[in-house]
Amino acid sequence: MFELLATEGRARCGRLTTPHGVIETPIFMPVGTQGTVKGVSPEELRGLRAQIILGNTYHLFVRPGLDVMRHFGGLHRFMAWDGPILTDSGGFQVFSLAKLRRITEEGVHFQNHLDGTPTFIGPETSMDIQETLGSDIAMVFDECPPFPCERDYAARSLALTLRWAARCKLWQESRPRPPLVFGIVQGSSYADLRAESAQALVEIGFDGYAVGGVSVGEPEPEMMAAIEHSVPFLPSDRPRYAMGLGTPPQMLEMIARGIDMFDCVLPTRIARNGTAFTAAGTLNLKNSGFALDPGPIEDGCQCPACRTFTRGYLRHLIKAEEILGLRLVTLHNLHFYLTLMEKTRHHIQVGTFDEFRRAFVAGYQVHKTKF
Amino acid sequence: MFELLATEGRARCGRLTTPHGVIETPIFMPVGTQGTVKGVSPEELRGLRAQIILGNTYHLFVRPGLDVMRHFGGLHRFMAWDGPILTDSGGFQVFSLAKLRRITEEGVHFQNHLDGTPTFIGPETSMDIQETLGSDIAMVFDECPPFPCERDYAARSLALTLRWAARCKLWQESRPRPPLVFGIVQGSSYADLRAESAQALVEIGFDGYAVGGVSVGEPEPEMMAAIEHSVPFLPSDRPRYAMGLGTPPQMLEMIARGIDMFDCVLPTRIARNGTAFTAAGTLNLKNSGFALDPGPIEDGCQCPACRTFTRGYLRHLIKAEEILGLRLVTLHNLHFYLTLMEKTRHHIQVGTFDEFRRAFVAGYQVHKTKF
Repeated sequence: MFELLATEGRARCGRLTTPHGVIETPIFMPVGTQGTVKGVSPEELRGLRAQIILGNTYHLFVRPGLDVMRHFGGLHRFMAWDGPILTDSGGFQVFSLAKLRRITEEGVHFQNHLDGTPTFIGPETSMDIQETLGSDIAMVFDECPPFPCERDYAARSLALTLRWAARCKLWQESRPRPPLVFGIVQGSSYADLRAESAQALVEIGFDGYAVGGVSVGEPEPEMMAAIEHSVPFLPSDRPRYAMGLGTPPQMLEMIARGIDMFDCVLPTRIARNGTAFTAAGTLNLKNSGFALDPGPIEDGCQCPACRTFTRGYLRHLIKAEEILGLRLVTLHNLHFYLTLMEKTRHHIQVGTFDEFRRAFVAGYQVHKTKF
Repeated sequence: MFELLATEGRARCGRLTTPHGVIETPIFMPVGTQGTVKGVSPEELRGLRAQIILGNTYHLFVRPGLDVMRHFGGLHRFMAWDGPILTDSGGFQVFSLAKLRRITEEGVHFQNHLDGTPTFIGPETSMDIQETLGSDIAMVFDECPPFPCERDYAARSLALTLRWAARCKLWQESRPRPPLVFGIVQGSSYADLRAESAQALVEIGFDGYAVGGVSVGEPEPEMMAAIEHSVPFLPSDRPRYAMGLGTPPQMLEMIARGIDMFDCVLPTRIARNGTAFTAAGTLNLKNSGFALDPGPIEDGCQCPACRTFTRGYLRHLIKAEEILGLRLVTLHNLHFYLTLMEKTRHHIQVGTFDEFRRAFVAGYQVHKTKF
């Protein structure tokens, strides 16, 4: 199911087989929250060589809802994407978007953020929804405490999440053709809780393990600590996934610490604000210095934006709030993330990843505009 | 320059040669107001077999401005569209968008709608701007009175517009490699003023003639009257262009009255609101009746939306305000307009246009939702 092809230090290059095909790791998964990667067609995703995308269970459960999903035979056919799909469990959104939450042993009662409909999601519900979506990789339903949080809360939350994880495993065992199911290591910023969480999950036994509970807005040392406190307790023959992370240099640093899979809204979200990723850092294309710039976003880039359009034109589109502007920067940013993972896989296979990582991180400065 | 290939009644099929290539008429020109057809890439426009697009002089003059346009060598290179471009004169926008207008014999003083900068555009300025944009077909600068309007105002406005038209013609004659220049018949709802306007413009002598001053929101009888009062006075060896018009059946009715060219924001604008054109009328894809609909927007349609996506999925995207939804409906609507013109050209050439028009108009009901 997960085959290790090469390693360099803790960095790994592998292959994960899912019901809808094989993916190569390290991998970045574009986020398709509401049944579409924002602004991008499935055909364009294939053109970018995306191998797997992420769908958000909570959003799709709330809208269009399971009746629609069932009717269309799942998310793959609904959105015309025939490659692998990983779905989150909805846990994070229940805790970040929904209103009037009440957490019980059974699961979470809440009102959805769209129209306030009273709703319940527990571990089995979440797995059922993910099965209806036709997910290739389903995530266990977890409680998501704020980060950082008090140790007591973190410990209690972790215990509940572990009991829920065991129920997700039972659910998987009850199914004739279940998806892969990944456990999620919690434990906030507490090394011993991370270790306890990882060990308990491994004892239950999952097809892969995620490190959860750290968002891309947290300080980098916290992020790396969460990875370092979790990975050593995870088996080498299962993929490891850093949920919701991170910037390009952060991904390389996490790969160096043994992570194989990433998803993050950054490349699509900041594109819609006119910010593009390059090896030298992010460019705010709204900057007036780009008005007459005849070059592409990044020299040598082979993405659909850089092959045809100038920074000057993209700046105009973004200033004029034209949809084509955010489309093109989104394609560039996804291409940047996806090719960074392609290069990473290559470097791990030939044993030059450490050098590649150091040079990349040194050359990259977030939020410094370059001309 | 304009070659008539076939006629059927007053309907014509022809070929117009422009600096950036030959276009076949009757033709629909997608509107690219700010240097992009909203939501659509140049590559997609080529895929839709668009032959010529429209650029808005006023908008591009205000933003990104002529310095940027000059720097990038004109609109074609700026937006990466190498086919023909028709630009309007800016007159309509000066009268509909700009503030604090003062009309003089020389031209119009106004404050632009973006930042209030005091600006002047007269006939020569408009032609200069259109030349800087690299327009293939430039329109004369006209005063645009409201429609309908008092006869006195219409007559005075028309007289001014004719003096401005003569100055545009002089401008064209002063240029070594001028664009084609089209005159614009005004005269509001007054048959004698339309006739006077058309005859005076023909006396000046232009490369084509537009019927102006009627917007797509006006009652259809007014629209057809404006066409019928103008076309008989226009020479058969020049193309005729109905500015800013119309719905699909209206285009066929105008073609039957001798019109060759159209531009209209309808297909792109209503797409962004989730409304799609079909031969049976418009569909509001937000309608809950489409939630489980597994069919394409229109059976047999070969557009990028209909080839891959269901009405149910499109409805979800539009309800969720996802960009891909408006992109796909925009592509469908442009495809609908462009293929309607392809079919029309075919039917005129084989002599079945009148039958085609009658059947199409009979089958089409605007704003009736069909299931």
